Amino acid sequence: MSERLEAQFAFLNEADRLKSVLRATTLCDGSRAENSGEHSWHLALYALVLVDQADPRVNINRVIRMLLIHDLVEIDVGDVPIHSAGGQAHASEGTLAAEAQAASRIFGILPRDLACDLHALWTEFEASETPDAIFAKSLDRVQPVMANLMSGGGTWKTYQVTADQLQARVGRKIARGAPHLWDWVRVKVAPFFAC
Amino acid sequence: MSERLEAQFAFLNEADRLKSVLRATTLCDGSRAENSGEHSWHLALYALVLVDQADPRVNINRVIRMLLIHDLVEIDVGDVPIHSAGGQAHASEGTLAAEAQAASRIFGILPRDLACDLHALWTEFEASETPDAIFAKSLDRVQPVMANLMSGGGTWKTYQVTADQLQARVGRKIARGAPHLWDWVRVKVAPFFAC
Repeated sequence: MSERLEAQFAFLNEADRLKSVLRATTLCDGSRAENSGEHSWHLALYALVLVDQADPRVNINRVIRMLLIHDLVEIDVGDVPIHSAGGQAHASEGTLAAEAQAASRIFGILPRDLACDLHALWTEFEASETPDAIFAKSLDRVQPVMANLMSGGGTWKTYQVTADQLQARVGRKIARGAPHLWDWVRVKVAPFFAC
Repeated sequence: MSERLEAQFAFLNEADRLKSVLRATTLCDGSRAENSGEHSWHLALYALVLVDQADPRVNINRVIRMLLIHDLVEIDVGDVPIHSAGGQAHASEGTLAAEAQAASRIFGILPRDLACDLHALWTEFEASETPDAIFAKSLDRVQPVMANLMSGGGTWKTYQVTADQLQARVGRKIARGAPHLWDWVRVKVAPFFAC
């Protein structure tokens, strides 16, 4: 048991580093950049509170688990902002390969059974094909939108995002997993992109 | 639906403030104080990884939910470090009353059904009588111990904590919900309290 606990805590101590990975998005009050640890917490809370926006097939407990681990790869790769490099960096081949390598290293710290379970859950999230992963991705897209709304524009200003770019990079993915939610959010967002 | 979403997001935006509540404990690398938002994420990850330490009656999904919301009251009350004021402040009558008032205000932002559910879950955590709450409390006690171990003593040095005080304020609660875990942790901790 001791060896197993050593591996479990080696992982949990390594995970602590996610609190030092900074995102482009700020806190709602604009006071500082958000880190990926607190972002993951906020997203899990989003899932808990917005469960009624999910497709009935969604298992919200699995969604919460996905969201708790979805950004751990950023310990090695850093956060790649969705609007950076003209929207081309976030899902580039290079970023995806680096994240896959990071997932193997970081989940590999765990005892084998846990490593397999959590690595598979992360892979499912990334593939974004199951109802659980699709809903989790929607929440991951909507939370920075709310932070930008609260902080007066946030990363939309930083990266000079247009309404079309927001629809393509963000709106489409929110609508895929939570269509009613995007209908509501897009009305809030519209004034920021008015000419 | 629109009114419901307004309330859900009013709560989620208010929750963002937990990222600005600082704890006495630092990150594992000692670089800065941990905030209560990222602490809540780390604890939920603890639950996910240390589920095999829980009593078989424990529902780990409920534990994760408890840990996601357990510190929200600190938005109003702040973090009251367990070793501060000679260990007397943390569960003082004044602190508990202020936290109860904060819970009513903060969960009360939500639509009624969600407000009732999450307020009840927080009350269950605080009462620490059910298997789920007892295990959640154990994790809430063990995570700062690991941070102190990693950072070379942390709050044990700040507050000049003795071995007996650690046993009374921390060890007893870890052992209540996760006895094997405390058996393992206490061996790691011992050198810090050796004469």
